[in-house]
Amino acid sequence: MNVRGAVLVTGTEVLSGATSDRNGPWISRRLGTLGVEVEGIHQVGDRPEDLLATLEFLRGRGIDLIVTSGGLGPTADDLTAEVVGRFAGRPLRLDEEMERKIEAVLAEFARRFNLDSESLRAGNRKQAMVPEGAVPIDPVGTAPGLVVPAGDQVVIVLPGPPRELQGMWESAIAAAPAREMLARAEPYQELALRMFGVPESELAASLREIGAGTDLSALEITTCLRGGELEVDVRYRDGAEEAAAALRAGLVERHGSFVFSETGQSATEAVVGLLDGRTIAVAESCTSGLLAARLTERPGSSAYFVGGVVAYSNDAKVELLGVPAELIARTGAVSTEVAEAMADGAIECFGADIGVGITGIAGPDGGTQDKPVGYVCISAAARGGERHTRDPVLPGGRADVRERSATAALHLVRNLLLLGEQPPR
Amino acid sequence: MNVRGAVLVTGTEVLSGATSDRNGPWISRRLGTLGVEVEGIHQVGDRPEDLLATLEFLRGRGIDLIVTSGGLGPTADDLTAEVVGRFAGRPLRLDEEMERKIEAVLAEFARRFNLDSESLRAGNRKQAMVPEGAVPIDPVGTAPGLVVPAGDQVVIVLPGPPRELQGMWESAIAAAPAREMLARAEPYQELALRMFGVPESELAASLREIGAGTDLSALEITTCLRGGELEVDVRYRDGAEEAAAALRAGLVERHGSFVFSETGQSATEAVVGLLDGRTIAVAESCTSGLLAARLTERPGSSAYFVGGVVAYSNDAKVELLGVPAELIARTGAVSTEVAEAMADGAIECFGADIGVGITGIAGPDGGTQDKPVGYVCISAAARGGERHTRDPVLPGGRADVRERSATAALHLVRNLLLLGEQPPR
Repeated sequence: MNVRGAVLVTGTEVLSGATSDRNGPWISRRLGTLGVEVEGIHQVGDRPEDLLATLEFLRGRGIDLIVTSGGLGPTADDLTAEVVGRFAGRPLRLDEEMERKIEAVLAEFARRFNLDSESLRAGNRKQAMVPEGAVPIDPVGTAPGLVVPAGDQVVIVLPGPPRELQGMWESAIAAAPAREMLARAEPYQELALRMFGVPESELAASLREIGAGTDLSALEITTCLRGGELEVDVRYRDGAEEAAAALRAGLVERHGSFVFSETGQSATEAVVGLLDGRTIAVAESCTSGLLAARLTERPGSSAYFVGGVVAYSNDAKVELLGVPAELIARTGAVSTEVAEAMADGAIECFGADIGVGITGIAGPDGGTQDKPVGYVCISAAARGGERHTRDPVLPGGRADVRERSATAALHLVRNLLLLGEQPPR
Repeated sequence: MNVRGAVLVTGTEVLSGATSDRNGPWISRRLGTLGVEVEGIHQVGDRPEDLLATLEFLRGRGIDLIVTSGGLGPTADDLTAEVVGRFAGRPLRLDEEMERKIEAVLAEFARRFNLDSESLRAGNRKQAMVPEGAVPIDPVGTAPGLVVPAGDQVVIVLPGPPRELQGMWESAIAAAPAREMLARAEPYQELALRMFGVPESELAASLREIGAGTDLSALEITTCLRGGELEVDVRYRDGAEEAAAALRAGLVERHGSFVFSETGQSATEAVVGLLDGRTIAVAESCTSGLLAARLTERPGSSAYFVGGVVAYSNDAKVELLGVPAELIARTGAVSTEVAEAMADGAIECFGADIGVGITGIAGPDGGTQDKPVGYVCISAAARGGERHTRDPVLPGGRADVRERSATAALHLVRNLLLLGEQPPR
């Protein structure tokens, strides 16, 4: 049978726009792979009546499993345990074992940071109040979680800090009420294609064409354009394997080398796979470290990434990277020639096999008629002399241009590693 | 009177965990400053029945203004306009003027990217279907927006790509139905304190103490611990100025120089303000460009940021930054001594006034008993010889450690600029 789930994120900080919620997507993804059909992610403030109304709404929608995040802290506006208790018809009682556990955590915390443990303990008793009949989940920080049976529903209650929530997830879904609910769910199979350089409308046309020949109705297809990359995520249950395979083959046939991943791996992962023992170094201007940061996201990146120079000033481009001052004077600091010299400079500077140079106008100022804001020159070069160079005009604000420049650079490196010499344009 | 608002974000890509929604917080913040009391942000998939049920739920909760994002694209799973039309009791009709506008945009798009304009046009007519009596909003991309009167409610319908949504916001809130609704809202006043180095429980104690002397009930206080920084956001209406001032004064009195902003400005902005004409350069190992990227987020950063070296390998530390090889051999690459030598190297390398060195163990591998994962050495130095150096053990996974290291480094620079020589610990 289908198990329907929903996520309820609490906390005024999300509504104030101060932060973007990371827990909702994380939980939703985990529920999805367990076979739960996720109705939605609902973020509400700290008002108990809004929280309770949303829980009742989800019950009315036939949601079986609700996961909440946040509102378990020591401050007075943290009300989730109480509201979920009311929703489930289970009054709060003090869990003495939990109280002792939290006390031990706080004593250690106070010792390490030399804090006044009295002020720390004030919130302790509040955090050890548990709805009757709920299964408490040991804290990773100081806030315990809860798995609360609520009639035909089950509510999993977890704290807001992502590190704590993620650390408590396995214990929470293993607790009896959650485990029994999840045993009824049929896991999904998944397919995740990633493309670069394909407009969304071209993809829509491809999906229509493939759909004309094959019934795709058993597939849940999601497309998303993100930072210049087009993501196609497909979920399906047993029996739809042939439709999924036809879709995959149809997209790869139509979009060829623009498809950089069939497993959902990132551009960074694709590049790392292709490096195959070679080392890479970068020389960045407008992206100012973002490409270096992307190339080192993964553990073990020191095996292939040797270093980078953020050459924001012309002096740094000349002195550290050996870009000829005459070249900058002649073409300007933002030119394909300077990007190529920067890529070569990165190879020399770090003794790398592959070098990347990026120079561009992130804006909002500094644009001209010829070189508008968003104009970025990128070159990926190999020690042997092959290189790929591009100079797109990227859309969006300063942050978008910087992020997209780093993404475009990764794809240029991928093309270089995949194709060798740049084909004529 | 109070105007209550809510945000409804559609799209399976958020539920699949593929992406974190940025539109909800953005819209919520904009609504807040207009004086709208935001009930929540609801993210649901592309199922029309879930979308409609959520709209009905919000109507039942007395929400006056609903803003939707997403589901306006050319593909068949984009259903928001149709569902909102049904919710408002307004059937769709073809808006011929809008059809011509979209056609013009697409023709230009096809020309620039040399695409098949036939396949692009297929989705065009669908995007020009508008609920009867709704006010269409001109597209920034290809998807037009809508402002739809729905009985006592108003629904603003905007596309999903953040750049398009943000570009259409001003037109949407200026459209008659939205403008009339918003005229009834009373704008909030805001206070935004930022602290570093204060644990959340200490803040909770301060809030209790201040609240014992002053009635704070007219203030909406939100606290959020994010990447090591503690954010306190306060909203209030006219008449609560004294309570807000008492809260501000009480927190500043208790937490002194740990309060780095009273206006919500970021650590980067605080540092830039204090630089006051001096230049800064960085030498990064474990953060690999993240600090350089943070220092250049703002437009005009070339006035103070001169450059950075990402010295991932020991060779790069020695050759580019002049860290003595003997020192690395003696103390290891992760030590306060190496961080200090890196900071000095950044000053020399770029001729900067201020230099920062970061070296640490981001994990998940590489930790030892003495130097566990999360152990990071950071030094901020001035050309004159003053320096601040710290070696905290930061919590979290690889990404957390990297982000927090960059944040901690910014605060170390702030301390250096504010205090000069490091006080004895």
